[in-house]
Amino acid sequence: MSKSSTSPARVVSLPGLPYVFGDPALLEQALTHRSHGYRHNERLEFLGDALLNFTIAALLFEERPDAPEGDLSRMRARLVRDRTLAQVARELGLGDHLRLGPGELKSGGYLRESILADALEAIFGAALLDGGVDRARQLVEALLRPRLDALPDVDMLKDPKTRLQEFLQARGLNLPEYRVIEERGADHAREFTVSCTVDVLDAPVQATAGSRRKAEQAAARAVLERIEAEQQR
Amino acid sequence: MSKSSTSPARVVSLPGLPYVFGDPALLEQALTHRSHGYRHNERLEFLGDALLNFTIAALLFEERPDAPEGDLSRMRARLVRDRTLAQVARELGLGDHLRLGPGELKSGGYLRESILADALEAIFGAALLDGGVDRARQLVEALLRPRLDALPDVDMLKDPKTRLQEFLQARGLNLPEYRVIEERGADHAREFTVSCTVDVLDAPVQATAGSRRKAEQAAARAVLERIEAEQQR
Repeated sequence: MSKSSTSPARVVSLPGLPYVFGDPALLEQALTHRSHGYRHNERLEFLGDALLNFTIAALLFEERPDAPEGDLSRMRARLVRDRTLAQVARELGLGDHLRLGPGELKSGGYLRESILADALEAIFGAALLDGGVDRARQLVEALLRPRLDALPDVDMLKDPKTRLQEFLQARGLNLPEYRVIEERGADHAREFTVSCTVDVLDAPVQATAGSRRKAEQAAARAVLERIEAEQQR
Repeated sequence: MSKSSTSPARVVSLPGLPYVFGDPALLEQALTHRSHGYRHNERLEFLGDALLNFTIAALLFEERPDAPEGDLSRMRARLVRDRTLAQVARELGLGDHLRLGPGELKSGGYLRESILADALEAIFGAALLDGGVDRARQLVEALLRPRLDALPDVDMLKDPKTRLQEFLQARGLNLPEYRVIEERGADHAREFTVSCTVDVLDAPVQATAGSRRKAEQAAARAVLERIEAEQQR
């Protein structure tokens, strides 16, 4: 980075970013991780996160007039989670422009999902300060539009236990029964094996994971896959 | 409520609400709880909640230029929580205008914090659809401005355990030690008594609550109060 803050060579945009900053210092700050220095991007991230959530909420509200509130929440969660934002950031090559402290640089921080997602949110916040709410919302929409259009079926956004329960309830069947079969390993590396029993399958299905909750979800997912496979026979 | 949807007598605002709706149907829907009928306020609440969070985030960002992200988050949480929104809703007399199903009416639903808070958020969402983002943000600010100006000291927004830890660390003292002294009562009414030991007090301080976490927080609060009292001697 240039030492002179009035250098004409300062970056005002990034390749692929459909926004040109009037104030390059804002973009610079958005790309600065707190490990790098005092003027870092955490406050901008707070602002950009709020703008992002609002923009996506308004788009989903408008474009999914029949979706109940719960579905809107799930769709938004999918779009604003770190994983999605980090993908968008990677497509923009954001990692190459991040300003990280030496520790983060060595540990590959420029690849970390949360750092990339936070920087993208900070860019949204910087655009809000730079160009106002309408242009910043347009930027958010431009970057998220492909994901917005490609949202999976609403039901697939629910977790496996919820989906399994709804599947069974819709058919008037009993709720699934979860049971912890085995707990093993030391405290810091515990493993839970859970069985899930449902009326429509002959035998219980088992799954193992690092927490009881995760093992139950994994078992429910396995049951759903088993049911699907049997239906396709 | 009038049965004719074209009645000229439809309500376009509420006493004390600094916004007049062009489309009274939006206000009506915002005031309709899901227990009352099909066109209820849950989707509007989703939209209004996002607008509220964004508006408050932008105001705090601007008005607290020195606050780090964590403080901004805590201040916002305080302003957008149900308790605060329900207070604002009560000042507007919102409860008198809510449209609730018979069950909620009987059980006093019009007094419930969450129902009042949700309706207020739905009004924000309705104003956004009715008048656009700028006017809706102005409405949010007008209603929350007194609370925004009266936010307690940032440190007081932290939970007692965090405050106690920071107090001790700032003085180079050891961290507090929490210990469960007693657990009693049946499963559904369990009580935990926790002691908290710190270097600056001669004896441990105890507190009892319905969960270990709450008992620890209560003990930390009691320790802070004891320290404060000793400092004032």
